[in-house]
Amino acid sequence: MKDLGHGANVEQIAKTYNIDPKEIIDFSSNVNPEVIKDLDKYILEGLKESRSYPDINYTNLRKNIGDYLNIKSEYIIPGNGATELIYLLMKVIGKRLAILNPTFSEYRRSAKLNGLEVIDLNLNEENQFLIDIDVIKNNLDKFDSLFICNPNNPNGKAQELNELLNILKQNNKLLIVDETFMEFAGNEENYSLVKNIKNYDNLFIIKAATKFFGMPGLRLGYGITSNKDIINKIYHYKEPWTINAFADTLSKYIFKDKEYIENSKSYYIQEREYMLKELRSIENISVYDTDTNFLLIKLNNRRANEIKVELLRRSKILIRDASNFIGLDDRYIRVAIKSHDDNKTLIENMKNLLGD
Amino acid sequence: MKDLGHGANVEQIAKTYNIDPKEIIDFSSNVNPEVIKDLDKYILEGLKESRSYPDINYTNLRKNIGDYLNIKSEYIIPGNGATELIYLLMKVIGKRLAILNPTFSEYRRSAKLNGLEVIDLNLNEENQFLIDIDVIKNNLDKFDSLFICNPNNPNGKAQELNELLNILKQNNKLLIVDETFMEFAGNEENYSLVKNIKNYDNLFIIKAATKFFGMPGLRLGYGITSNKDIINKIYHYKEPWTINAFADTLSKYIFKDKEYIENSKSYYIQEREYMLKELRSIENISVYDTDTNFLLIKLNNRRANEIKVELLRRSKILIRDASNFIGLDDRYIRVAIKSHDDNKTLIENMKNLLGD
Repeated sequence: MKDLGHGANVEQIAKTYNIDPKEIIDFSSNVNPEVIKDLDKYILEGLKESRSYPDINYTNLRKNIGDYLNIKSEYIIPGNGATELIYLLMKVIGKRLAILNPTFSEYRRSAKLNGLEVIDLNLNEENQFLIDIDVIKNNLDKFDSLFICNPNNPNGKAQELNELLNILKQNNKLLIVDETFMEFAGNEENYSLVKNIKNYDNLFIIKAATKFFGMPGLRLGYGITSNKDIINKIYHYKEPWTINAFADTLSKYIFKDKEYIENSKSYYIQEREYMLKELRSIENISVYDTDTNFLLIKLNNRRANEIKVELLRRSKILIRDASNFIGLDDRYIRVAIKSHDDNKTLIENMKNLLGD
Repeated sequence: MKDLGHGANVEQIAKTYNIDPKEIIDFSSNVNPEVIKDLDKYILEGLKESRSYPDINYTNLRKNIGDYLNIKSEYIIPGNGATELIYLLMKVIGKRLAILNPTFSEYRRSAKLNGLEVIDLNLNEENQFLIDIDVIKNNLDKFDSLFICNPNNPNGKAQELNELLNILKQNNKLLIVDETFMEFAGNEENYSLVKNIKNYDNLFIIKAATKFFGMPGLRLGYGITSNKDIINKIYHYKEPWTINAFADTLSKYIFKDKEYIENSKSYYIQEREYMLKELRSIENISVYDTDTNFLLIKLNNRRANEIKVELLRRSKILIRDASNFIGLDDRYIRVAIKSHDDNKTLIENMKNLLGD
């Protein structure tokens, strides 16, 4: 099997370090530790549905997502996680794709596997890895589509992209925005471009349902666009039945649970503040601003892998060594924001290890 | 959304004919109506696992399948249904793919979408749609790989392919066998080529776990080969996390339930005999031999779509109009073998409609 360099594989790590996988506190994956109420009941309903083939058109699933986002269901293309949409898109867009590094590695992998030319633009460390519109403007001639992760993985800061969307529209460029982590942001309405879908046919948004809803193993993502040409081309390539019956069934419930959604949002707003404050009290590390459920940290005088191994050995804490992100080096780590107790454990151990 | 022409979409049909979808008896999909015991319990275990990312290497899943088939887990490539494997294969095999028509339409679709040249060989109606090795021998120069569905969909007869495997080996051709319906066959050991995997590097077998185990909505399939070059190429293209946590977890249980497996096999052996006998008592139709859980029927003087609509309107029975299979015409229908009571209902209605 190929190592794609994602968040660590807990089972494998457990074996390597001779730890019971159940004891590992996994800060390497960015997943909401809370789930909606009555999930057991809904999953057993999904079990009944799994006895027959999923609706090949996913009519109800698309309607449930459309209602959640307040847009037409015909703009929605559901997928087996956000990943399926990323790969499908690469088959149907222009030949030159610009990527802002550092970012999620599957954009590049899917582009390369589909024969696209990848144009690397860089997010600058001195600029906190924020998007610089001038850099994009100066490179407009070089790409057909621009792929942006907002909030970006690994740094986590959400950004307003309205001006950028307009510039790209005027120049006939496609803007692809991966909003997988957008629900974690406090001012989602300021940052998300979903409200622009209807009026911008140069926009394609990708979302994953299951990070915010705490179930990455459910595999549910979706693409959103009003561009009929892109929609038709994607359906031309899309494989049938890629979304399982449990995801289809749960879409009736997760998107409607307003209380859960609000509580999760509030939790993250508060917990981010706590973690930023505590982590920033540690000397010799820099902690980047975030609007989502993970934090990028730069170690001033230690190596990422060293810290990763020490945290594992000492405290069974697993973090993400972020040195394999293009544009980062071996001083970067990424940690998820988990339950308050887990976060306290992490902070305590980081303080012990790095000195406060 | 594109109509891919598969077994009917119950929700859509229900809407069109103004029937409650729950009342439709669906003979259009070929799925075991029984499931293993304690499935609820295992699904709730899967729910716990769904809270984190699936193991990207699917180590346990591959081991469970390997144990079931009595082969090394390194020969197994799990997928989101058999479909994912079919599509991956098309990216890594030679340019010319021979297909024996009529057969499952996704072989052709996936080949075309990946730029392969499809070489159409025909199964002959006079020969009961059985494979004629001479036809393949006479066309050896025309293809690099041969795709066979065994038992074949839509006719359902299993065939011994050992001689064919050897001929293709001697001629450096790849044999791809879709054994999705193999577990339903009575003498599986005579027909399945899994035992040849280790010694034939020109063999790739595809299986779907969830038709025989009655859960197509779970989405679990797998490919099997000892050809390292093909394995490496597939992993080069494979998208991460395509199999959901429920499928991963259930693999611990479904493949080990020997009693369920034996009971299902016995049931189908007996029920096939009953259905063949009863259906063959109806004049004006021909019923093809089958070793699996569906039957192909030729109507002598009625049109498939006519019968489909009449069965729906009169009795809420949904069958598969098989006229869109390449090589069939508008006189062919396909029906699943379901529970004995459902089957009795079908037979009774077929007798009423077609005269006995």
